[in-house]
Amino acid sequence: MEELKSFIRHVQDFPKKGIGFKDITTLLKEEPQFCRVIDLICEHFNNKKIDSVLGIEARGFIFAGAVAYKLKKGMIPVRKPGKLPAETIKEEYMLEYGTDAVEMHLDAVKSGSKVLIVDDLLATGGTVKATCNLIEKAGGIVQGIAFLIELDFLKGRDKLKDYDIFTLLHFESE
Amino acid sequence: MEELKSFIRHVQDFPKKGIGFKDITTLLKEEPQFCRVIDLICEHFNNKKIDSVLGIEARGFIFAGAVAYKLKKGMIPVRKPGKLPAETIKEEYMLEYGTDAVEMHLDAVKSGSKVLIVDDLLATGGTVKATCNLIEKAGGIVQGIAFLIELDFLKGRDKLKDYDIFTLLHFESE
Repeated sequence: MEELKSFIRHVQDFPKKGIGFKDITTLLKEEPQFCRVIDLICEHFNNKKIDSVLGIEARGFIFAGAVAYKLKKGMIPVRKPGKLPAETIKEEYMLEYGTDAVEMHLDAVKSGSKVLIVDDLLATGGTVKATCNLIEKAGGIVQGIAFLIELDFLKGRDKLKDYDIFTLLHFESE
Repeated sequence: MEELKSFIRHVQDFPKKGIGFKDITTLLKEEPQFCRVIDLICEHFNNKKIDSVLGIEARGFIFAGAVAYKLKKGMIPVRKPGKLPAETIKEEYMLEYGTDAVEMHLDAVKSGSKVLIVDDLLATGGTVKATCNLIEKAGGIVQGIAFLIELDFLKGRDKLKDYDIFTLLHFESE
């Protein structure tokens, strides 16, 4: 994993001063590393029954599309409010200041359906927890959550105690 | 292709009154159809040398991620302004009223690199043409462009005459 980690670029002061941003584009653009990430996620969940792979806008779509293809499953997009055209369900979550929300089509998850969430990065966990709530509201089951990166120091995992989480790259500090 | 087409949901008056929206989520969530789309795109470009697969935010990421994985290539994201953390190049394009822009990391495309663009939908072609310009500014070659859907009546293809375009599903009218 240390080799994969070396492909993540650290960008200081993005999106604002004091924040150290983990840039995944330097990993994405390298074929062996990008494909290895997808393979490792798929291998980890290989023994679990999965009906659909869910991706969270926008970077999550890159990984969820590839994992869905590799596992031969359908792909479900969760998006920012107002982007999905048909009937949606919505879930709000807290930000440092104010709230944000994610939406999913009401018909995206069948009752009893087993869903694997794939996202690029676990930070404070608000978006992912809201996504778990959406799946469960629709009657689905969160079968697992895969992240390329986890920022351990933000303790997002604490919000996701009920779930099987698989993270490839851990960062213990900024 | 008519079978694949039947999985696209028509949503009237989205995002605004008078617009007929092509909803791809009803295709994405069905495994055989989603995977077939990826396979057909990859088969079409199988005989062309491709170095990287480029996806345009946000829905384009779903397809570009899966195509990159299947072709065993790296993946390059093109994003809305302000989303990419390192040094970018930017290209503006005209909207009905005003302009919009797309950005790409300066180090995303190497000189002489052959890039396949994958996107969900060709409408007026502004975003895709701007993306072609970005690739060429960086010294790359647009080796092909793949779309799931083309809205023929919007004539986006007229802006892309220099390129090898492959579309799976054509809609001749709203």
